[in-house]
Amino acid sequence: MVNKQFHLASRPQGQATTGNFRLVEAPVAALADGQVLVRHHYLSLDPYMRGRMSDAKSYAPPQPLDAVMIGGTAGEVVESRHPNFAAGDRVAGMGGWQQYSVVDGNARGGLRKVDVSRIPLSAYLGVVGMPGVTAWYGLMKICEAESGDTILVSAASGAVGSVVGQLAKAKGCRAIGIAGGAEKCAYVVDELGFDACIDYKVHADPKSLYRALKEATPSGIDGHFENVGGTILDAALARMNPFGRIALCGMISGYDGQAIPLSQPSLILTSRLRIEGFIVSEHMEVWPEALTELGTMVATGKLKYRESVAEGIESAPEAFLGLLKGKNFGKQLVKLT
Amino acid sequence: MVNKQFHLASRPQGQATTGNFRLVEAPVAALADGQVLVRHHYLSLDPYMRGRMSDAKSYAPPQPLDAVMIGGTAGEVVESRHPNFAAGDRVAGMGGWQQYSVVDGNARGGLRKVDVSRIPLSAYLGVVGMPGVTAWYGLMKICEAESGDTILVSAASGAVGSVVGQLAKAKGCRAIGIAGGAEKCAYVVDELGFDACIDYKVHADPKSLYRALKEATPSGIDGHFENVGGTILDAALARMNPFGRIALCGMISGYDGQAIPLSQPSLILTSRLRIEGFIVSEHMEVWPEALTELGTMVATGKLKYRESVAEGIESAPEAFLGLLKGKNFGKQLVKLT
Repeated sequence: MVNKQFHLASRPQGQATTGNFRLVEAPVAALADGQVLVRHHYLSLDPYMRGRMSDAKSYAPPQPLDAVMIGGTAGEVVESRHPNFAAGDRVAGMGGWQQYSVVDGNARGGLRKVDVSRIPLSAYLGVVGMPGVTAWYGLMKICEAESGDTILVSAASGAVGSVVGQLAKAKGCRAIGIAGGAEKCAYVVDELGFDACIDYKVHADPKSLYRALKEATPSGIDGHFENVGGTILDAALARMNPFGRIALCGMISGYDGQAIPLSQPSLILTSRLRIEGFIVSEHMEVWPEALTELGTMVATGKLKYRESVAEGIESAPEAFLGLLKGKNFGKQLVKLT
Repeated sequence: MVNKQFHLASRPQGQATTGNFRLVEAPVAALADGQVLVRHHYLSLDPYMRGRMSDAKSYAPPQPLDAVMIGGTAGEVVESRHPNFAAGDRVAGMGGWQQYSVVDGNARGGLRKVDVSRIPLSAYLGVVGMPGVTAWYGLMKICEAESGDTILVSAASGAVGSVVGQLAKAKGCRAIGIAGGAEKCAYVVDELGFDACIDYKVHADPKSLYRALKEATPSGIDGHFENVGGTILDAALARMNPFGRIALCGMISGYDGQAIPLSQPSLILTSRLRIEGFIVSEHMEVWPEALTELGTMVATGKLKYRESVAEGIESAPEAFLGLLKGKNFGKQLVKLT
């Protein structure tokens, strides 16, 4: 049995390119006791992967060269030598950019069985997976969203942002999104139920962006969930109400190496703001509560989501580079079966 | 009885100058029921006053033009028509830049009687007053200093910074200061007991400042108390340990109008930092606990402080402008009697 996989061939100099990845065909090893063989149905592509491709100091060790790219996967057990797993089980894990993975069934945070009777398998890589819990943690634990608050979220049509806004609405907040393009903005408001969405592409000038944001947030902003950084964060900072909270989840604009300054840090003092960066995998204690709430909302139709699905393992690098440029629309997946 | 006072005559365009102030001689009005007449012995000069002189949006309403400059004062009751105060009582309050004030004895946060048997009157404007509580709040409630932590504080020889470092040492932390000039740095280490102090004047280049900071904090920084902003904050940010806390108390470099950007905000995410701006007058609930601890430390000689004392009300504007340029050494006061 041949297992197609992508390795990191080289670290990007500036923008990442398809040349940074190498397609490899590897055999699948026979199982040892306690191991499980998983066939991946879906691979998750996420912005954090770009950070791992660099060897700059960061919160996680860099992705090693000449090894399978890290990544979340959802699939089915093909063969098991672990008592908790049986062939046919649907599972989510961190199988990486490949068609199959051999997993230690005992590894903490390794494989988890998922119920596909009311929730589609792919959703466990999105709204009922890492991106969903990321949204939940930042909104509930850092932004401390309460009924009546105005909540702003950037990359609002994306896997994380779309959950932030819908959760905020469910909590009785006013939800404002920022997204790129009229189609995404219409989706955010019409489908997801946000109160407004600002198209950053028609507000390339920082002053124009600020004016649009001011118009959409007449009572200021109480909680901001930042997925992007740069001029969007600058504009948000200037609209924050006293004692506002900012959850810093993504700084996608800076991944290509150039640092993007924050224009007016003195606003943190004058508006007495709290800004906190977080990585959801460091807060495993909230996952059960968050996944239960998110799963219930998905199963009952109260949490909508959208997926961009690329076909076949070979399409992974192009799909990933597109994600970094905002070409995806909703959660970016690669379908492997 | 004539009361010399300083009014704000005009708002600064760029740097503040003595021309922004006007010396006025006003009569002292007769007391109404419930009022207290206070003769000020000391006027406190503090960086926050520069912010109030502007009418830019900030946390507090601007200082009105043609009115007495706001400011903390310590003095003695001359005459009282309020049952809680009697002639001879030593009191602290917010009497402003003038020799006398008439105060409503019932006003919340107005006049408080102070005990000068073990603590000098002037200390109630410094270590056992607003600057001391500011240090206490930022260190204990935002930096969450614990034994073994490395704590960094800028403007380390100043009224707030000197208390931050000494409190940190008392809690079992390693305390590192940043100050301007060899004399201040020697004082911070030799007199106040900090573990090290970096002279920012010999490290004008950001890279040089960072290297000096790296050398002084081999285990990184767990809590940073920021009184200055600008390149100092940039350097501190780059040395923060994961999950570090930054209390933002002052951004003196930006008071003259020009915003000073934060160079690498993405570090907030990659190091999962928490940054919080605060104004101590909005946290009155901690004052009793903080003042008790600070007062005991001063009375028992465990908390040292230094004062720069200008003589006479006429010297207030020059002394204030010197404070903004770091010419003071310790708490800046004006002695009025």
